[in-house]
Amino acid sequence: MSFPPPSRRSAVAPFIAMDVLAEARALERQGRRIVHMELGEPGAPAPQAVRAAAERALREGAIGYAEALGRPELRRRIARHYADAYGAEVSPERVVVTTGSSGAFVLAFLAALDPGARVALTAPGYPAYANILAALGLEPAFIEIARETRFAPTAAALEAAHRQRRLQAVLLASPANPTGAMIESGELAKICAFCAEAGVVLVSDEIYHGLSYAQPCETALTHSREAIVVNSFSKYYAMTGWRLGWLVAPEGLVRPIERLQQSLAISAPTLAQIAALDAFEATAELEAVKAGYARSRALMLERLPQLGFDDFAPPDGAFYFYVDVSRFTADSAAFCRRMLEEAGVAATPGVDFDRARGGRAVRFSYAGPEAEIRLGLDRLANWLGKSGDAAL
Amino acid sequence: MSFPPPSRRSAVAPFIAMDVLAEARALERQGRRIVHMELGEPGAPAPQAVRAAAERALREGAIGYAEALGRPELRRRIARHYADAYGAEVSPERVVVTTGSSGAFVLAFLAALDPGARVALTAPGYPAYANILAALGLEPAFIEIARETRFAPTAAALEAAHRQRRLQAVLLASPANPTGAMIESGELAKICAFCAEAGVVLVSDEIYHGLSYAQPCETALTHSREAIVVNSFSKYYAMTGWRLGWLVAPEGLVRPIERLQQSLAISAPTLAQIAALDAFEATAELEAVKAGYARSRALMLERLPQLGFDDFAPPDGAFYFYVDVSRFTADSAAFCRRMLEEAGVAATPGVDFDRARGGRAVRFSYAGPEAEIRLGLDRLANWLGKSGDAAL
Repeated sequence: MSFPPPSRRSAVAPFIAMDVLAEARALERQGRRIVHMELGEPGAPAPQAVRAAAERALREGAIGYAEALGRPELRRRIARHYADAYGAEVSPERVVVTTGSSGAFVLAFLAALDPGARVALTAPGYPAYANILAALGLEPAFIEIARETRFAPTAAALEAAHRQRRLQAVLLASPANPTGAMIESGELAKICAFCAEAGVVLVSDEIYHGLSYAQPCETALTHSREAIVVNSFSKYYAMTGWRLGWLVAPEGLVRPIERLQQSLAISAPTLAQIAALDAFEATAELEAVKAGYARSRALMLERLPQLGFDDFAPPDGAFYFYVDVSRFTADSAAFCRRMLEEAGVAATPGVDFDRARGGRAVRFSYAGPEAEIRLGLDRLANWLGKSGDAAL
Repeated sequence: MSFPPPSRRSAVAPFIAMDVLAEARALERQGRRIVHMELGEPGAPAPQAVRAAAERALREGAIGYAEALGRPELRRRIARHYADAYGAEVSPERVVVTTGSSGAFVLAFLAALDPGARVALTAPGYPAYANILAALGLEPAFIEIARETRFAPTAAALEAAHRQRRLQAVLLASPANPTGAMIESGELAKICAFCAEAGVVLVSDEIYHGLSYAQPCETALTHSREAIVVNSFSKYYAMTGWRLGWLVAPEGLVRPIERLQQSLAISAPTLAQIAALDAFEATAELEAVKAGYARSRALMLERLPQLGFDDFAPPDGAFYFYVDVSRFTADSAAFCRRMLEEAGVAATPGVDFDRARGGRAVRFSYAGPEAEIRLGLDRLANWLGKSGDAAL
């Protein structure tokens, strides 16, 4: 055993999606052509105006540290976005620019919760949630959700969990990863009311906002001034590698978050902060990208059932299908490995999202280029036609 | 009291340098011209080749997520840098690209230390160290250093601290902030040997490497395969706002760090990772910037004593002077506020770096443009000539 030994708190689960990506890239280095349906990453680049603004800033001078809470112009522009998109009034003082939504979660949990606090989150759900909680000494309390509620969590389920064992916080996403499920407006209001009454901190992950296909997205800020809202430029704005997100915090948490950010990060990346101002004006370009997702979603809705993947809740938003594969396998990790090797299609096994039940599920992302999604579906049809029955 | 109340662990100290900066900017908005000697931020932009590489990447396509451990080309290039600059052999597998050195510290502490671990660090020292430790449940054990050892920590002082109360880790910087002090080669070897024998984790902050004015910088990796080395593109490479750093970890910590990075950050900013490759080839440009620091340092060495600031250890590296101001004041925060308001010169009070003794010290940064440093010294001469004696 080498020195120093890893800490206990570093024993978090790996992201299997990343391991799938690594295997896919290894096959590509051998000359294979792989269809990537494993990653929640837009195929499109950042909007043209964002890239042009970044180029200008690079020519104009030094890219220095930004304010710990973020550049004032960007904080103001994000605040205005809440008025424009939701009709919600948010003071720029409550907006904190962060290093992706990842940075926002770390700040939110450190600022609002001390070690040992119990945090409810859904299974299936984004795997990093539980890992961040574990690394920061917080205790995840999983609430299992299923197709019966369209994979959306309910106020009743949270209340039941709270009665069983007192929660300090609830962490929810709508639209959600990996299911694309959205919480309906009435239910979100009930969840906010429950949290307010019970004195439970609500952390609302709104990273997939803008990417909904039937109803508009609703922010928790509509129902609560106490919710901590997390968002990002990664998904709708197609700026993953820029590592830029934000949070809206209740007033009393802003200064603690500022102090934590000063020491833990100094500031979010400055060039991204300068360029992101233009993201809010790139609606036409971004809606065209979204229309591509909508077409891919329609194609998946039509063709997945023909392949035998007929057990899923049609996703309301984001760019994922979370599909029950129990007619093929009880070991989705092995199933995905075979799919990658034999069909050349990368997808993420459900165990990333639901350790207990994910062996029977697979997440397919349709964030990539439309032609790739079509090719992936063709390959799966071919693969399952040849070998699908053998896997039964 | 608003809900939710801040956590106990968020009660970290603010960065007073940042508050000074905010006051300075408020004065600037009123039309005042302020000389900035409060910030450890290069006045020069990133090297031309770095900015050109970033512009090219922006035109070429999407800036997607990078690998959690960093882009393989950059990890290889950083590894080669250890051979080029130090004659040290470092495997690229041990290099992790991080979101600034800030991100590296968070990963290093989470991966190697569990809550309650005691970490020795110097006073004076970089204020974020103690804040990061506190936020992550670690216990700072301050070792007071003074002019007698040129503000450099010694193996003997660490051994004494360890005997008094067992340490799990030691965090050292050379050159150091705020003093510019460097640990001499023989002493660094002794410190590494002590840590190896005592089973103490050594975290070596080498962020100011490249910026030394007499002797070359020496990496802890020369003496230890068990040290965790932290570095950054912010200082020598003048890339602060790009938020890019790295660490070299012992083999056994790489996978735990990878898992933590996957969940806590996903990856360091991709555009910065692409562009930073060129930073290693920009030596002529960067050495010219450093020659400017050397001239400012010489000017400060000559003129600070004439102003009555004669009690300091001549800095070996970095771009700071840490000056005893006890002949003027015992309240350096008030002294700096007056200096800012009356002389228009921003500097950082020592309390940022040494809570116990910092009331009698001020840090002057000479990272800014040379003309500004000269103007700042002129203003201080004028101010102290008029009002300096009154402050005695």
